[in-house]
Amino acid sequence: MHDAPFSSAAEFRALFDTLPEPDAKAIAGATARNGQLTKPPGSLGRLEDLAIWYAGWRGDARPKIKAPQVLVFAGNHGVCAQGVSAFPAEVTAQMVANFKAGGAAINQLAEAFGARLDVQALALETPTADFTQGPAMDEAGFLSALTAGWHAVDPGADLLVTGEMGIGNTTAAAAVAYALFGGAPEDWVGRGTGVDDAGLANKARVLAEALVANPGAKGDGLEALRCVGGRELAGMAGAMARARVEGIPVILDGFICTATAAALATLSERALDHAVAGHVSAEAGHAALLAKIGKEPLLSLGMRLGEGSGAALAIAVLQGALATHSGMATFAEAGVSDG
Amino acid sequence: MHDAPFSSAAEFRALFDTLPEPDAKAIAGATARNGQLTKPPGSLGRLEDLAIWYAGWRGDARPKIKAPQVLVFAGNHGVCAQGVSAFPAEVTAQMVANFKAGGAAINQLAEAFGARLDVQALALETPTADFTQGPAMDEAGFLSALTAGWHAVDPGADLLVTGEMGIGNTTAAAAVAYALFGGAPEDWVGRGTGVDDAGLANKARVLAEALVANPGAKGDGLEALRCVGGRELAGMAGAMARARVEGIPVILDGFICTATAAALATLSERALDHAVAGHVSAEAGHAALLAKIGKEPLLSLGMRLGEGSGAALAIAVLQGALATHSGMATFAEAGVSDG
Repeated sequence: MHDAPFSSAAEFRALFDTLPEPDAKAIAGATARNGQLTKPPGSLGRLEDLAIWYAGWRGDARPKIKAPQVLVFAGNHGVCAQGVSAFPAEVTAQMVANFKAGGAAINQLAEAFGARLDVQALALETPTADFTQGPAMDEAGFLSALTAGWHAVDPGADLLVTGEMGIGNTTAAAAVAYALFGGAPEDWVGRGTGVDDAGLANKARVLAEALVANPGAKGDGLEALRCVGGRELAGMAGAMARARVEGIPVILDGFICTATAAALATLSERALDHAVAGHVSAEAGHAALLAKIGKEPLLSLGMRLGEGSGAALAIAVLQGALATHSGMATFAEAGVSDG
Repeated sequence: MHDAPFSSAAEFRALFDTLPEPDAKAIAGATARNGQLTKPPGSLGRLEDLAIWYAGWRGDARPKIKAPQVLVFAGNHGVCAQGVSAFPAEVTAQMVANFKAGGAAINQLAEAFGARLDVQALALETPTADFTQGPAMDEAGFLSALTAGWHAVDPGADLLVTGEMGIGNTTAAAAVAYALFGGAPEDWVGRGTGVDDAGLANKARVLAEALVANPGAKGDGLEALRCVGGRELAGMAGAMARARVEGIPVILDGFICTATAAALATLSERALDHAVAGHVSAEAGHAALLAKIGKEPLLSLGMRLGEGSGAALAIAVLQGALATHSGMATFAEAGVSDG
């Protein structure tokens, strides 16, 4: 396990060549148990698949969720100079203070579903460079954020949600998606926290300029995160990678989290096997991004806040899945005829 | 308030002529509060609407969910003589024993989300009459089940989920839907807990015969519940009506619960204002039934178990909505710039 900062992107990439598999015995045991529970086969729908998936990653055919962690990364963006957000950049630090004081949406959702919340503010006083002019981060800055994310994961956690806060970061995430999947800039930009039609057109312009200034970001997940992403995206990437190596299941949040996950997916087709999509947000490109990584969202409630909020709400769905899977009686235990 | 059994269906119908409204002042207060919370306007999507709706019914602009109740009614069905279920009728009583022993899915879900669970077995030893031959219940039997439902609601509850168990009851619910909304029998029958194609055709035949034998059920919600419904449907109807009168918000469960709710909707267009749809199930007719009563489901996870299970999972969504609405800081409290 990495205790020191990653000394190169290559070192981080190499992790994805030797990813662990989920526990086949736990999957088999959970599948068998699921077939014996006092319900018609398949009648709990996706809850059944979730429970078996979770069992595999935890190596336990009858697990419970005891220690979920929500990890929120914050970063500031030089691209705000291009007028991409409806909110001023100082709101990032103000919201970090709000997280620390317990006043934000993610505080309430983490508490409601029994999750520990940790917040990592990543060099807010030094925004990344404006990526319409060149790379957002140099290699050292990128590795520092990636490493911070890696170390922020509690190895004792049994479920991870990664969230983010960063004025301007829907533009960064859209730029990552555009770098990875191409299409038109307009396919990936959305209203974020509330820009108007002119703001939307401006974001599309920024995306086009970002890839002209950073041609190496095209199709390369780590370069996309470094050149047109941001520190909070790099932090989430490090955390999701750590969870993958530790066998900690992940619930993906919205557009920015999913763009980050999609960047990891370029490193291995198995990079996101430990992750489910918590929700599909109202941000324009999110549904398309989920389709690109082949994940079906658990919730669709028109949320578009970030902070990990949609994924934190989806913790409850997973709790319901595990409560039924691990808590129900079997037909034999209950003396119920099984059809 | 009714402490005695309803002495006539007319007495029950009359309740719907003088239904209370939600609290306009609480709605206004909750709407104002929602606009001041530390998030972009609208960014919590449906959670915001849910919180304001709940505030109105509870008469409190900043409420919390403290005492949710899950109420499961069980009944047996004479129509099982027509071979409509993949499970034998004795499973109803076996599952009631499983509920009481804590081994069923609904036990786990109620516990996971902090809800009290009460189970009402309604004369299981005396199945309703086979409704292909005539009414399932006489007036006295119907009123008895309706009254049992009314009294089963804890007036101190601040949220209600009504669930059901009854071998054969997807056929009863489909017959209620067919009686209320017409179309073809095939529009309303589904696989329930697991019938095959021949079983599906048989259920359609049973629906056609049910309405020939019970022409008075057409378009009349209470007559539909009495003639082609069942005791657990009548129990749920009584409970939902009590909740409407007491101002207790209701989360609807699947096909059988929604068919029952649709029957109440024939009594007043405001009958279901206190209810949201917890989920859309995999049972064939459920999405169409939700469209008929104008409710958008909160969850879509392919569940089709009944017992109140989908609605019990949706308690968590409402808990998330209220946790954020009532727990978050305002822009002024947190010192965050509001754009």
